[in-house]
Order: sequence, then structure tokens, then C-alpha cells
Amino acid sequence: MELKTPYLLFLGDVPDALAAKTALGIVDWRPEWCIGQLRLPGCKADCGVPDLSLDEAREKGVQTMVIGVVNAGGVLPDHWVDTVVAALEAGLDVASGLHKKLESNERIKAAAEANGRTLHNVRHSDRTFDTGKGTKRRGKRVLAVGTDCSVGKKYTALALEKAMRARGMDADFCATGQTGIFISGRGVSIDAVVADFIAGAAEWISPAAESDDHWDVIEGQGSLFHPSFAGVSIGLLHGSQPDALIICHEPTRTTMRGVATPLPSIQQVIDLNLSCARLTNPNVRCAGIAVNTQALAEDEARAYLAGLSSEYGLPATDPVRFGMDEIAAKLQDDF
Amino acid sequence: MELKTPYLLFLGDVPDALAAKTALGIVDWRPEWCIGQLRLPGCKADCGVPDLSLDEAREKGVQTMVIGVVNAGGVLPDHWVDTVVAALEAGLDVASGLHKKLESNERIKAAAEANGRTLHNVRHSDRTFDTGKGTKRRGKRVLAVGTDCSVGKKYTALALEKAMRARGMDADFCATGQTGIFISGRGVSIDAVVADFIAGAAEWISPAAESDDHWDVIEGQGSLFHPSFAGVSIGLLHGSQPDALIICHEPTRTTMRGVATPLPSIQQVIDLNLSCARLTNPNVRCAGIAVNTQALAEDEARAYLAGLSSEYGLPATDPVRFGMDEIAAKLQDDF
Repeated sequence: MELKTPYLLFLGDVPDALAAKTALGIVDWRPEWCIGQLRLPGCKADCGVPDLSLDEAREKGVQTMVIGVVNAGGVLPDHWVDTVVAALEAGLDVASGLHKKLESNERIKAAAEANGRTLHNVRHSDRTFDTGKGTKRRGKRVLAVGTDCSVGKKYTALALEKAMRARGMDADFCATGQTGIFISGRGVSIDAVVADFIAGAAEWISPAAESDDHWDVIEGQGSLFHPSFAGVSIGLLHGSQPDALIICHEPTRTTMRGVATPLPSIQQVIDLNLSCARLTNPNVRCAGIAVNTQALAEDEARAYLAGLSSEYGLPATDPVRFGMDEIAAKLQDDF
Repeated sequence: MELKTPYLLFLGDVPDALAAKTALGIVDWRPEWCIGQLRLPGCKADCGVPDLSLDEAREKGVQTMVIGVVNAGGVLPDHWVDTVVAALEAGLDVASGLHKKLESNERIKAAAEANGRTLHNVRHSDRTFDTGKGTKRRGKRVLAVGTDCSVGKKYTALALEKAMRARGMDADFCATGQTGIFISGRGVSIDAVVADFIAGAAEWISPAAESDDHWDVIEGQGSLFHPSFAGVSIGLLHGSQPDALIICHEPTRTTMRGVATPLPSIQQVIDLNLSCARLTNPNVRCAGIAVNTQALAEDEARAYLAGLSSEYGLPATDPVRFGMDEIAAKLQDDF
């Protein structure tokens, strides 16, 4: 999936900022791609970019209108269809993170065909992948892995890309989920791939680099310790063949998200991920620990991270509060 | 997927017995379901069951015609379509293990609709599954896991079901691949499920039993050490929540099937499978080792198995040559 940038962010008439979190994430990480937003009457979210009509967006060079919202059921409301059709008629592609495919609406499908525009459903993978090969590819790779789902792996990878680039390193974020795909303009929702092709899709996401010093910074998914999603995690681990792992953690979590399974220890996560990752990269090592310390006061967070760093002999940080420079430096110096 | 039995085995005009290996496997394991075969002129395979016309098959109570062949490309040849349509018109369901779906042929699709018959494509999973929950289910479960793909996991599970039933144990084979589905009349091609739902599909395949003594004997897939397919294997392992694992091995294999990755040791396979399986069943243990010793002379095979048994402290057998009774006995006595 390759999205054309820049974007117009369509927010519809969502009732609050949380419902626009996909669009807000894109603005956070790719402000230069977000030319404007399009809001319907009653919209309660605001991405802080100019409100534009479709014609204004087109004049300013927008290529794709992104439906940057989440809603219950993942269905496009009927009263948004007119705007989507008008965007296609104005010459924009349309990309959606909703569960329901855009072309399942006949008017949208017809308008895309009539105007020669592309519809992107980033939650779906229509592409056919090879099975994973396990062959060593050129370049270096770092993968975010977690004690659980939703502990900040995407944010960690994006913050790491930023810190590496700030050091002059050649680093690219590789998206494996929908918000990440909007942010990078490319990627695969790896949890939507057919089971036999998880590792193969991961190999496609991070292909052979053009130089030995290039880093792919790969967004992780799930956890090897999650009873629902470990298949996605191990396929992504094998296909990514990482040189470095970043362990992501949320210290107040006691059970895995959505199930009753207890959270593993950080040491268990390090051990099992390294053991499995060696299958496709025998030299894999951990490069750091990234913790979402939102629930802790700043001095508590600093003490907690210092304790982890001393216990595991690795840099430990909160990517939001304290940035990823120390881990980027370790990748630059030790890998 | 639930197939109605008994079967008529359709062999088409395949050029040799190998091309009919699916049908031959069904006859090996479920002779009571195989009422007859239907062969076209030039067919070089023979399942050793009566040749029947469609009308004869219907009279004898056949419910489903099984296309029990494999061919390059997985496509139904045009000159087989007449027979498939005639089977539907004669009142049979039709089940296929080919890659291409039966309903992709318009005549077959129309004949199924007109006659109210069901088309089964056992390589595909149209069913929607929940994500895995990891909740303990009633009954006992044994899963075949392997050093590699294609080392005899299906055969091991079927032979184990047979040996357990011979001991009066309440045991059911649970299919996770296409040939297994024809043999059990039920199951899911788990490698065709969307990645997020592998463990959930495995939970569906082996649901809560009606008694504490019931055993599900679950066909394994892939290997945790295969760089293409480990996602399928770990999801199946978590979803199966096995009490017992059988380690399957082929001793002449040096690299994983289809890739250059070296084969793991049996000890590595035991350690990683037990470690991961404990997530959903902390009491999981190994119950035995099943080896395909086809490449060894009988005395070599016996010596090799005795060596394994002594090294690992587990019964070790070749399911084809020596049967699975010793492992069934261990399950009966120790689990």
C-alpha cells in the first residue's frame, strides 16, 4: 500500500477528539503532509490545521483525503458519502482506516471508477505476498516488541526514527498497522494478512536496503505473550530479522489487554524474543527499553527508568517524556 | 466447515497415484466413509474402492463428492466441470481441496444454487472467528508439533487417535489442514485464516469437551522454527492449550523445508514449544516423540528410536512402522 501525499484530513462530524485520534496522530508525526482538514457541521474535533474546501485542497496540491477517524462498528456513516464522492470528483484519492471497505458503497465505487481515482482501505491487505524466506537482507533493522499490545510500540518506533534522523542516521519508519500506514504513506496492516504469509509480508515491509548503514525502524504488533495475537508477533519478528530489539512496556498493566493472562516480566520478554529472533538473525541484541510512564509522576518515572536501566544494563526511557536519543546513540555506536 | 459423509471420491483423469494422494489418505483413515470412486477415462490412480456412477453413489447414500486430487496450479480442469455439475444435479454436495474456489466456475455456482447443494472449499476459510481468549476449556488436548513442516504431524495425530480409541479412550482427531478436514469431516485450514484470528480459530477447532476425560488429538502445522510459518504454529499452540505435546521429526532433514534455515534439535523444539505453550496451559508436558524413519532400515530405526527414548526420557516411535500405543498408554496413565 502506497498512499500519495500530502493529505486532507476528513474528520466528519465526530463527537470528540478521541474519535479523531488517527488524524491527530498523523498531524503529530507528519505535519508537513497535513495541508488541511475538512469538517462537517457539528464536528467536535480539531487537528489545528486550516479548514479547507475540496477545491482549496486540490489547489494546494493535496493528493489524498484521509478518513482519519475511528467509530463504533467501523462503518462509514451515510451522511459522509456525499463528501467522499465529491472528493473523488475533485480528483483526490481517498484512504480509510474503517473496517468496512470504501468500495462496498456503490456510489463511492462508481465515483472512483468514473474519475480514475484510487480507494485505499489500510486495514485490509489485498496484496499477495510470498511466504517468508528467512534470507539475510542488506541494511540494519530495529523492531519494537512488547510485554503486551498497546504499550506504545508505534510511538516508540516513530520517536526512534526522529532521534536517529536528528543524529544524521539514515532511518525509515516501517508501518505495520493502520495509523502507522497513514503516517508513513506505506505499509501493511500485518494482522490482516493470511496466516501463511505473515513473515513474508514482514519481509516485504522491510526489503533489502540500498546501503549497509540504512536502518529500518519497524513498528511492532501484539506480543509473543498475548494468547490472541502471538502469531502476528512471531511472524513479524522472523520476517523483520532485526539486529536490535526495543522492549516496550506499560508498568501499571497487570493482565494482557482484553484477556485474563498475566503480564510477563521484561526479562521473559527479552529472553523469548531474542531466542525466536535468532532464527533469522543470530546477532540480534536488545538496544533499550521504552516505557509509557504516563501514570507516574516525573520523579517516580525517572527512578523507575533508572532502576530498569541498572537491572537490565540497557538504556531505559519514556519516548514521550524523555525522547529516544540515548537508544539512538546506542544503535549508532554499538550496532 | 462440516462435510456430510459418506463420500464418493472423484479422481478425474489424474496421471498417477501421487496426484490422488488426498483421496488415498481418506481411504487409509476413513474406509467406512469411502463408498466408491468416480474416475474419468485415462485415470491412472485407483483407491481400491468400487467404481460408481453418480446415480449408484446417490442410491448407496453418498452425501458428498470429494475432489480428492492435487494438481499443479490448484485449478479445476475444464473437462471435469461436467462431472461436478452432474454430481450437484444428482443431489450431492461437492468438496474440493484445490486452490481455486469451486464457485469461481459459473456453471458450478449456478448448478449448486439451482439444486440447493453446498460447495466446500476446504483450503479456504470463509468463517469468521473470534480472537483467541486463552480461557481454560474442559477436556484434555494433545498437539503434534514438529522440528519442521511435513514431518508427519497429521499421520502422527491420526495414528494416535486410533491407538487411543483401541485402548477405549474417548479421543477425536481435530483437523487443521485440508486432507485432515476430509478425513475428519470437520476442521479449519488454519494457515488460511487471517493473522489476527489464528489462536481464535484453534480455540474453535477444539472447543470445550463434554467430559473431563475427552481427548482432542490436534493436527499440528508448521514449526516454531520455520521462518515462513511460525506464526501459524504459535497461534495453533496457544489456541490448542495442549496438556500434552508429541514431537514429530524426520531424521534425514538438514534444513527447514523450502528454505536454507538449519533444522533445530529435538531438545530446542521441546524447550521452545513447552515455554510458549505454558502461556495457556501451565501444566503442559511432552508425551512422546514420533519419527518418520522411512529412510532407515528397520534395525537402524529401532536403534535410533531407542537412543531418542533414552536421551529424552520419553517414548519414541515411528507411527507407521511401530504404531502409537506406547504414547497412548502414557497419555492414559500419566495425564
